[in-house]
Amino acid sequence: MAIKLYGPMVSTCAVRVMTCLHEKLVEYSLHPVDLLAGEHRQPAFLSKNPFGLAPVLEDGDLTLFESRAITGYLAEKYKDKGYDLIRHQNPKEAAFVKVWIEVESHHFNPLIHPIIYHYFVSPLLGKTPDQSIIDANVAQLGKVLDVYDTRLSSNKYLAGDFYSLADLHHLPYTHYLMKTPYADLIQSRPHVRAWWENVSSRPTFAKVSTNMKFE
Amino acid sequence: MAIKLYGPMVSTCAVRVMTCLHEKLVEYSLHPVDLLAGEHRQPAFLSKNPFGLAPVLEDGDLTLFESRAITGYLAEKYKDKGYDLIRHQNPKEAAFVKVWIEVESHHFNPLIHPIIYHYFVSPLLGKTPDQSIIDANVAQLGKVLDVYDTRLSSNKYLAGDFYSLADLHHLPYTHYLMKTPYADLIQSRPHVRAWWENVSSRPTFAKVSTNMKFE
Repeated sequence: MAIKLYGPMVSTCAVRVMTCLHEKLVEYSLHPVDLLAGEHRQPAFLSKNPFGLAPVLEDGDLTLFESRAITGYLAEKYKDKGYDLIRHQNPKEAAFVKVWIEVESHHFNPLIHPIIYHYFVSPLLGKTPDQSIIDANVAQLGKVLDVYDTRLSSNKYLAGDFYSLADLHHLPYTHYLMKTPYADLIQSRPHVRAWWENVSSRPTFAKVSTNMKFE
Repeated sequence: MAIKLYGPMVSTCAVRVMTCLHEKLVEYSLHPVDLLAGEHRQPAFLSKNPFGLAPVLEDGDLTLFESRAITGYLAEKYKDKGYDLIRHQNPKEAAFVKVWIEVESHHFNPLIHPIIYHYFVSPLLGKTPDQSIIDANVAQLGKVLDVYDTRLSSNKYLAGDFYSLADLHHLPYTHYLMKTPYADLIQSRPHVRAWWENVSSRPTFAKVSTNMKFE
């Protein structure tokens, strides 16, 4: 049975999963969810994800949510198909993939999420972006990216000299960040910039990022 | 070579790793880090974790940080030793463990962390807790725990009818929450309360939680 992904094409978390599916050469069908119409708050969607958030992945009788759980599931299920995102044959490299996946979750995402939300999503909802929230998170994200720049000065990718799920998880939000006045957070740090140019140009991401438009 | 864990015994994230080590029956030595004296901001510690946060685990020549990456590493390395925390022989159950690990990271932790920080840590640092931040997070956490209560009405544990890393990751912060005026968040939800009484009474957690005191 083919894999079904429920989520809008502009959703960062849906894009995270789609990019992973392309890396693993796994076929899937995409089922749009109309967030602006509140489809994710309807019983049909809540029965798939009680938190009411996209994306949701259905693989046969298995229904999963949380994008990073889904990518982890796919990377493990298809570990011998497509690109190996978790270095499953090298426990030491696999451990660093885990570390930098958690860095994205606990240091990068909590700061970049409010920037993108206030800059792009608030106006769509008819709200005025809160510039003080954006500014505070931009300042904090700069400090985190200083650590990334040092890390990437001696490693081509975050977990080591190999592309992995840790890099992939950063793609969707950074893609939107580059379309804001805060792109300099990436551009001004030479190793982060080189890493971004490298990871964002992978064909698997280019395939899905062309649809990432808020207009 | 024995495993070394660097972190204070009161640290939620160090306790998360210690509890996992006990579940896996893995010997380790604990090396205290004096956070109040700023030891985690000194070069010696920053060379282990550039983000300057405890805990750090050393396993031979491998140095890892981020508590949830460390527990994932241990659960996989010692998958056939002690209690199986990741259901490695059942891909479907393993997928639900991944989902609820991410729920803790992205729905539970971001709300409970500021409550515990403002209630317990701020006074230690000579600051006045920001009650409006506590109140806002208590309200949001209640909504998340409503979803948990429904989930736990049909499953004994978060990922299914088996204890897993998903439950374990919740233990340290919830332990502190129960010592605040907001314990009712757990007590008032019958299935969450029963789950908490069950998971918090595991001998592996009792062993480390006795040292979790801010006084």
